[in-house]
Amino acid sequence: MESLASHPFLRACRREPADYTPVWLMRQVGRYLPEYRTMRERLSLLELCKTPEAAAEATVLAVEKLGVDAAIIFADILLVAEPLGVGLAFARGEGPVIERPVRARDDVARLREVPAAEAAPFVFEAIRLARRALGRRAPLIGFAGAPFTLASYLIEGGPSQDFAATKRLMHVDPDTWQALMERLVRLTVDYLAGQIAAGADAVQLFDSWVGCLSPDAYRRFVLPYTRRVIAGLPPGVPVIHFGTGTAGLLELMREAGGDVVGLDWRVDLGEAWRRLGPGVAVQGNLDPAVLLTTPAEIRRAVRAILAAAGGRPGHIFNLGHGVLPDTPWTHVLAMVEAVHEMSRDRCCL
Amino acid sequence: MESLASHPFLRACRREPADYTPVWLMRQVGRYLPEYRTMRERLSLLELCKTPEAAAEATVLAVEKLGVDAAIIFADILLVAEPLGVGLAFARGEGPVIERPVRARDDVARLREVPAAEAAPFVFEAIRLARRALGRRAPLIGFAGAPFTLASYLIEGGPSQDFAATKRLMHVDPDTWQALMERLVRLTVDYLAGQIAAGADAVQLFDSWVGCLSPDAYRRFVLPYTRRVIAGLPPGVPVIHFGTGTAGLLELMREAGGDVVGLDWRVDLGEAWRRLGPGVAVQGNLDPAVLLTTPAEIRRAVRAILAAAGGRPGHIFNLGHGVLPDTPWTHVLAMVEAVHEMSRDRCCL
Repeated sequence: MESLASHPFLRACRREPADYTPVWLMRQVGRYLPEYRTMRERLSLLELCKTPEAAAEATVLAVEKLGVDAAIIFADILLVAEPLGVGLAFARGEGPVIERPVRARDDVARLREVPAAEAAPFVFEAIRLARRALGRRAPLIGFAGAPFTLASYLIEGGPSQDFAATKRLMHVDPDTWQALMERLVRLTVDYLAGQIAAGADAVQLFDSWVGCLSPDAYRRFVLPYTRRVIAGLPPGVPVIHFGTGTAGLLELMREAGGDVVGLDWRVDLGEAWRRLGPGVAVQGNLDPAVLLTTPAEIRRAVRAILAAAGGRPGHIFNLGHGVLPDTPWTHVLAMVEAVHEMSRDRCCL
Repeated sequence: MESLASHPFLRACRREPADYTPVWLMRQVGRYLPEYRTMRERLSLLELCKTPEAAAEATVLAVEKLGVDAAIIFADILLVAEPLGVGLAFARGEGPVIERPVRARDDVARLREVPAAEAAPFVFEAIRLARRALGRRAPLIGFAGAPFTLASYLIEGGPSQDFAATKRLMHVDPDTWQALMERLVRLTVDYLAGQIAAGADAVQLFDSWVGCLSPDAYRRFVLPYTRRVIAGLPPGVPVIHFGTGTAGLLELMREAGGDVVGLDWRVDLGEAWRRLGPGVAVQGNLDPAVLLTTPAEIRRAVRAILAAAGGRPGHIFNLGHGVLPDTPWTHVLAMVEAVHEMSRDRCCL
């Protein structure tokens, strides 16, 4: 029996050839799956995240139901923000709301220093359980929000179109920005290191909203902190560095680090990989909206992305962002099967 | 007295050297200006757009108050959509809402065919009045929504995060998509040609939301129609082709046409211009959120953008998208002055 280290997903993270292109999906466990809806009848999102047995069950569900090549721990990127004392709540259907947003130096000073092992022990326990349940079937991905994306939640306090308060703080009060980012670097390193110690085989750093920034602002206010997170993690465990709307930031994200750069769908994968240069793997990049269309259109789009990757070792197939709630799960299955079949056949090169 | 044709804005559109870098701002007349708020006490947005004297007054205001190098006709991109019969309303603070969204072939067939001269005569009259009032002080820009962005409004019926209905329609029912886009090409050419006949010195095509698409979807479902709009306009009047989130689409937008490509702030201007290649001017690309910061930060950002343009003829300074409502108008003034002063001095090259 082969060890997990030779699993196609981990081989792709290391840019080693594999028999087929591994595939998983961001938000692969969610409301679009009947089994998940059943779980959520009993438990709220936070309760599910804080019940390790349930979170582990949700984590493994994707591998069993969809045949994906990696599981990602079922959690929310704001779980570690809750113990900071900002008053986190998940309003129904509206996403997270922060009651006491961070806007000034004093707000940063007030953030509580709680080790991740105390802040989110349930995540580590869920990872241990999921790791055991998965065995050698599939690697398990841990994850965290990157400092910028966490900071933007803490500053905006809720959904934002333009991230105006975040951008205002970084430019107008760079000392407070620095203090906040340094706090979040420590938090994120601690949290991800804990997930790795608990059994995560790879980790993904979600800088989901970083694409709202100009390259100039990214270079000054984000890159140094993201780099410190990635450099601060134990070696040997692949790091996937992901953001959306990053077509103008790719070279800088590469500079910040990561074994794999996660691409959204608004860039051609082949062109993006060329810009990133050698020595890095890529993940992506199907538009999640294509899963709302037809199996024929899905196969067409899978083929185009595999062709853009050109069979070069180091491509992990994924969506460009999370599965949309209205997605038929059979379409996800069709996508996973198409990726496996076409990449084994190398028919689209 | 020099003719308007040698105005720095029009020279830049033609990539001819000018004494300084011309500058204007998208949404340069809006709630952030006290004079505009006073106008809106008397008139709703639609009433203001439909009262040529008031719309012309708002148009000219920017040149007088801010010293910008171009005026843009005060209007809304959905004015031409109203006569289609889809039930357009502007809900207070929520943006436009379409009561009867376009979702199927029959919905497209039901769209009324009304010539722009009947649909929006008040826009043409406002252009005539504004053109006369501006004289040789500044060129006047006309504008329209590009077919994709208009289609996305008509299909989604209101604000959208993911444009799922639009993407679903184009992939699942490409014949209906084609029929809708062909209708909107005719509408847009007619509307822009009418604006040019009324006195617009240049036109901007706003494909504001096109950045939600993958390059593959843009090539199949958007590029042919945008190209037909641009190719269908009378020669000699510069066309600015603008979108946001387009860092992965620039080469394709260039293929679609336009004398000037409008860039948002999420791409480095120098790098974007290099990718666009010779033979095209660029417009942009300050993050509107930088205008919320301090005059010192604004000057720093202006300098960086002028440096990225490198003094090459054919740069029009602008924001990457519209002015944000909370912007202090004195900051806009500081930006305009910084652009003029630094580009005259060529201090940042």
